[in-house]
Amino acid sequence: MNQADCILGNAYVLTMDDVYAAYPRGAVAVLGGAIAAVGDEAELRRTWQATEVVDCGGRLLLPGLVNAHTHVPMTLLRGLADDRRLDVWLLGYMMPVEREFVSPDFVRLGTLLACAEMIRGGITCFADMYYFEDAVAAATAEVGMRAVCSQTVLKFPTPDASSFEDSLAATSDFIERGKDHRLIVPSVAPHAPYTCTPEILQACAALAAEFDVPLHTHLAETAQEVDDWRSEHGMPVIPWVKKQGLFGAKVLAAHCVHIDEGEINTLQHAGAGVAHNPSSNLKLASGFAPVASMLQAGLNVGVGTDGPASNNDLDLFEEMRLANFIAKAVSRDPTALPARETLAMATRLGARALHIGDRCGTLEPGKRADLILVDLESVHAWPRFEREPDAVYSRLIYSAKSTDVSDVMVDGRWLMRDRRLLSVQVGPLMEAAGEYARRIDHFLLAREGSVLSKLIAIGGAEQEESYEVQLKVHIDDAEPVLQAMQSGAVEVVRKAHYHEYDTYFSFGAEERERLRHREDEFIDEGGNVFNVRYRLTLTGPAKEAEYPNAALLSRSRFIAPAKHSLRFYREYFKPSLESEVTKDRLRWLISYQGEEFYVNIDRVTRPALPGFYVELKSRTWSRRDAENKAALLSELLAALGLNNAAPVSKEYAELISPHSS
Amino acid sequence: MNQADCILGNAYVLTMDDVYAAYPRGAVAVLGGAIAAVGDEAELRRTWQATEVVDCGGRLLLPGLVNAHTHVPMTLLRGLADDRRLDVWLLGYMMPVEREFVSPDFVRLGTLLACAEMIRGGITCFADMYYFEDAVAAATAEVGMRAVCSQTVLKFPTPDASSFEDSLAATSDFIERGKDHRLIVPSVAPHAPYTCTPEILQACAALAAEFDVPLHTHLAETAQEVDDWRSEHGMPVIPWVKKQGLFGAKVLAAHCVHIDEGEINTLQHAGAGVAHNPSSNLKLASGFAPVASMLQAGLNVGVGTDGPASNNDLDLFEEMRLANFIAKAVSRDPTALPARETLAMATRLGARALHIGDRCGTLEPGKRADLILVDLESVHAWPRFEREPDAVYSRLIYSAKSTDVSDVMVDGRWLMRDRRLLSVQVGPLMEAAGEYARRIDHFLLAREGSVLSKLIAIGGAEQEESYEVQLKVHIDDAEPVLQAMQSGAVEVVRKAHYHEYDTYFSFGAEERERLRHREDEFIDEGGNVFNVRYRLTLTGPAKEAEYPNAALLSRSRFIAPAKHSLRFYREYFKPSLESEVTKDRLRWLISYQGEEFYVNIDRVTRPALPGFYVELKSRTWSRRDAENKAALLSELLAALGLNNAAPVSKEYAELISPHSS
Repeated sequence: MNQADCILGNAYVLTMDDVYAAYPRGAVAVLGGAIAAVGDEAELRRTWQATEVVDCGGRLLLPGLVNAHTHVPMTLLRGLADDRRLDVWLLGYMMPVEREFVSPDFVRLGTLLACAEMIRGGITCFADMYYFEDAVAAATAEVGMRAVCSQTVLKFPTPDASSFEDSLAATSDFIERGKDHRLIVPSVAPHAPYTCTPEILQACAALAAEFDVPLHTHLAETAQEVDDWRSEHGMPVIPWVKKQGLFGAKVLAAHCVHIDEGEINTLQHAGAGVAHNPSSNLKLASGFAPVASMLQAGLNVGVGTDGPASNNDLDLFEEMRLANFIAKAVSRDPTALPARETLAMATRLGARALHIGDRCGTLEPGKRADLILVDLESVHAWPRFEREPDAVYSRLIYSAKSTDVSDVMVDGRWLMRDRRLLSVQVGPLMEAAGEYARRIDHFLLAREGSVLSKLIAIGGAEQEESYEVQLKVHIDDAEPVLQAMQSGAVEVVRKAHYHEYDTYFSFGAEERERLRHREDEFIDEGGNVFNVRYRLTLTGPAKEAEYPNAALLSRSRFIAPAKHSLRFYREYFKPSLESEVTKDRLRWLISYQGEEFYVNIDRVTRPALPGFYVELKSRTWSRRDAENKAALLSELLAALGLNNAAPVSKEYAELISPHSS
Repeated sequence: MNQADCILGNAYVLTMDDVYAAYPRGAVAVLGGAIAAVGDEAELRRTWQATEVVDCGGRLLLPGLVNAHTHVPMTLLRGLADDRRLDVWLLGYMMPVEREFVSPDFVRLGTLLACAEMIRGGITCFADMYYFEDAVAAATAEVGMRAVCSQTVLKFPTPDASSFEDSLAATSDFIERGKDHRLIVPSVAPHAPYTCTPEILQACAALAAEFDVPLHTHLAETAQEVDDWRSEHGMPVIPWVKKQGLFGAKVLAAHCVHIDEGEINTLQHAGAGVAHNPSSNLKLASGFAPVASMLQAGLNVGVGTDGPASNNDLDLFEEMRLANFIAKAVSRDPTALPARETLAMATRLGARALHIGDRCGTLEPGKRADLILVDLESVHAWPRFEREPDAVYSRLIYSAKSTDVSDVMVDGRWLMRDRRLLSVQVGPLMEAAGEYARRIDHFLLAREGSVLSKLIAIGGAEQEESYEVQLKVHIDDAEPVLQAMQSGAVEVVRKAHYHEYDTYFSFGAEERERLRHREDEFIDEGGNVFNVRYRLTLTGPAKEAEYPNAALLSRSRFIAPAKHSLRFYREYFKPSLESEVTKDRLRWLISYQGEEFYVNIDRVTRPALPGFYVELKSRTWSRRDAENKAALLSELLAALGLNNAAPVSKEYAELISPHSS
């Protein structure tokens, strides 16, 4: 007779293994946190005994659900700003609030609350992606759940790193320290192709491969992303990331809403897992993922809730049902994605998508004991037809609710019994979350006058590269510089000529932000206007740093096409001060020492200023790179024969006197 | 000081009135089952007092939800046959089971269980459509819920009526008896354009108009329905039903998935309400209704669960969220259908769609006291942002679950307090429902050999008109009849000539059903084959009746195109007996006394039978009509000079001897 720690009997066992073995009068033996045996109860108990025998009261016993993609700390931002455009939601609300509030404490609290909600709903394992992921991992382990915890890397500064280099270094450390944990799989998350550089993607893939951990990312979530990729790179997202070597790692790709048959095959050959997030994709109007096709191609497609800020809950019963409905409706075939296969997405396939199918996702001997009990003897899931063995999956997917989950075990430890949470106390957590919500409300009310949020609200704005370095000098005569430009001292990539009509809006006495409306007339060789462009540029509060060579480092420029009239913008933004500058600009994109720089030779015509201004500038996502380029600026100045010219530290808006609007 | 029966205080009151008035510290006064006052609690209690004051503990207090379309007795068929094609599900499972099991007892039990589920989920009012609707109404009133109860009328025989004439008479009686009920609005439900005749639609509209009650129907649910309408009637569904005068009544139109802008305007001008059923439309792969456009046009669009056999639950929180998601995803606009407007669909607009907006749907003085309390202080709906007044709707739509409803009042009577049902006991009901499920499973297992279900399973079958009357005679010489046909005694509409190669499959000794595979060669004037058609026809168990003039009445023919080979059908259906008949058929469609009949002159060539057979036949949906036509058959026989010919009561399959397959 074999001795188990515990036998769960009188259960309707769904193993969710490859042949969907099920035991209407089944039992599971647990030993050392792992599943020792599964089968018909009478048979199992002929070979197994245990001191503890649990009567499951005829309930369903199945593998714990796997939430294949989420951002658990965002539980604290649930319902912060709904029914908004994706860019308004993300740039106008999520990112500013995250910049201000996200800390290890925030992340820990959000994770604990999310774990409580997930356990209640039968989730035993999740794949997370956020900042301070070490704090997410610690809180998750404390509660006793299983997770793939992915540290986010972005080209932008993040709440936990001022540059991606810092972020990568911290991630490497996080993975190395945590890679042998019993419950947590540490991982790296380059956020998305459009928020990373090829360099970041390559570094992340190398890191994940080095430690043999998953790489978690967002791919092809919106049609916009794919359109941009096709026009900028001549190919859609999946082949492009393949080209960057991303599939050298074990990839977990969230969303994959806009991918074609070829890309599905690429993912399949790469052994990538996919996290399908139906609620999030619908609520943000991203679209309908080709789930039926992905499954048919043999891809491991899991189901995810995405973060509670975009969903707004962590209910996998709801996601399973929605995944099922969407698959049927989109393929116009009510037989598509039957209930049984839907449950597989949230168990076996989900675990495989996370690249941890060897330890969870099914009830099979050797797997860790991650399992749940579900009570289907409720009015809303009644009656029970037993003619067909698959009817039980149908009740679970189409009628059951997350609140029907009664018991949850992870790694052999009970986390919930009879709907009572055992490893986390929600009362104090809810109180602390309420306090954060009050502070966030206060913060957002205070910044109501923010120019950026107003800019975003009327049509989106793109953040330019994080850093701009600039060196500006005044000269009386432009001829020597023009000659230097033609002398071959620098390599000219292209040249342009503009008349620029700029209007600057300033706000309040502090003048923290400045919004520029620019009308660019493009001038051809014959001096004729052949094109006009209207743009808005928002510059942040003053300089970030000034280097010894007088080079300026500035941050956070947002650019938007100006679709409305200047009058509209004046009324809408209500600037307190306004100034106008007209200038004639000769502009070169040049290559110098292998780096690209812009050179502007400007003549300010209104108000008429004497002489010429020469600007040397470059932009980059990396602060370290910015420092290198700032150093090169002095050399470039000399190469153009300008080392004795008078440095100018003021922007044009500051060189002239503004007038009240 | 005004005296109320009861004041509900310490509540966050959402009135859902036209301006969405809300009172974060609100109260409601109830008097005589109606709402006497709503407002800020401090203010309300300056003018109202009551012996009973209920502390709502800060919970949300809002109008009870309106389930705009359902078939509540089908609760007993929940999960009976999922993941199947619509025709297989409907013709293969629902209709046969309904024919066998639906009775007043069945309907009462299903209604009581459905009411229990709906009350738990905060539904106070619903629009039902089923058979034995008087039993639905009685059970609903007993539980204390509000409902529009619509008696179904179909051209087919139904579980509660052998013909539509009977059904209409019973409906008229049901409406007349019940039209002044406090909770129930009786109504008529012509099932759908494709299951009704123009005559039925007209009679139903007249009936609804006569008693000023709503007319409840299914319109434009599937693309197939609309395609059929365009090709058969040259217009889509909505203008066609308008032409039939349907909008002479107050229409509640369920589904409206496939309608265009013009049809939306037609519905709006007609004052019709629409019931949008997102789960059902997705699960059956019917499509995505243009909800945002309908709302924009000012239509009263409610949200419905549809029947629990196609959903599979009665959870309006789920439907609201899904309606919201679908509206956003289909319009590719995440700002479409904000949370607040979504809740309006399930309250104010839903009540108006049911044409009872004068008595429920909002919390306003004078309306009946139908209201619910919702507890949002749960982990899954936390935290609470209060910066924007609409955030409360967002929590309700995107995070709350039906299980968060704690208290329900209808017409001033509490039906649930602190999650405890007060007017219905579910235990015995669940037991009885379990017993039905066992019997239904048994019935379906027993009919596993059913030819019809197998026919449907491989490609659908269409039911022909319910009734066929036929008179058949044998003659030695065809000449006199041929001359009579040309003499003008009858008006010939069209004429055809076929060679027919028939193979009959019979099953078992009882020979209850017979399946005919027919290859029709279409012969032109020159005797050449110009077309071939392959069809399967299933005829039901023997004759329904034989009239004195030897006319036969038969029922339930199903026709399907035969896309596979005869060999395939032989293997698939495994007939026990098989027989072959080849004949030469001259066929006329004629008009006689204003009615249409077919006349066949057949010569059986294999096995060669002497002489000719003349068949006179007609089909109809109405039994009364069948009787009229049977009487006309004798006259027609005489007109063709055949009154002395030998009557034949056997079908061709019976005239020859079959052989074992």
